[in-house]
Amino acid sequence: MIVFHKREGFMKKQPLGRHLLLELYACDRDRLDDLASLEAALKEAARRSGATIVETVFHRFTPHGVSGVVVVAESHLAIHTWPEYGYAAVDFFTCGADIDYWRARDFLKEALVAESCEVKELLRGGRRGADGRPGPAEND
Amino acid sequence: MIVFHKREGFMKKQPLGRHLLLELYACDRDRLDDLASLEAALKEAARRSGATIVETVFHRFTPHGVSGVVVVAESHLAIHTWPEYGYAAVDFFTCGADIDYWRARDFLKEALVAESCEVKELLRGGRRGADGRPGPAEND
Repeated sequence: MIVFHKREGFMKKQPLGRHLLLELYACDRDRLDDLASLEAALKEAARRSGATIVETVFHRFTPHGVSGVVVVAESHLAIHTWPEYGYAAVDFFTCGADIDYWRARDFLKEALVAESCEVKELLRGGRRGADGRPGPAEND
Repeated sequence: MIVFHKREGFMKKQPLGRHLLLELYACDRDRLDDLASLEAALKEAARRSGATIVETVFHRFTPHGVSGVVVVAESHLAIHTWPEYGYAAVDFFTCGADIDYWRARDFLKEALVAESCEVKELLRGGRRGADGRPGPAEND
């Protein structure tokens, strides 16, 4: 599903960022609870998309579940897992036209052995002011 | 704007996560480029929402712009700024019913002196399988 901003003329302008949200269901539950494996998968997904990794933070919760963020030069790639449900939420925020985040999607779906992957793509920072630059619209 | 999943019966079930996306326009440009101030603001926003901070990662880019993520026990709060446009993209992913992320929204809007704040709220992990647990729907 692609969620576009409804303001007229939005699509004529480039947004500042693109934000991909993935709902990964029926994944391999062991992988969703394995911090090292998830961190390696997210870093590989970032690399495949063409992003440059700046820093990573991963945390495993008790009794289960992992949260992880890969900060990239082009923004961030994050994952939150619920091994007990076989579910993972991923979001990949990018700026710059050179990032192909669909490659990250394909890789993560495979790495987590997800049976289903629901996608939302949002464009960020797309509103333009009267001067044509990012800003509140005239009627805000 | 609230983006609900379109599948029938979705709203009868609790989602696993809630994801708040903020578009902050016409902010104070100096604040958007000040890493220490942004980090303090995001941590305070997380605290006000009731979240428990686990770790933070902030990075300042050349020539301008900051990316920062506060990993919280309830998921993450992230910001990406474009000082040159006075724009900041914020996303706050939470799980658990105890987090009031509207408090974080109110605080950040004020802290960044944003003239306009556009909101999208998405429910994550809301799809249910035949057994009523999170999973791919029967017709996936």
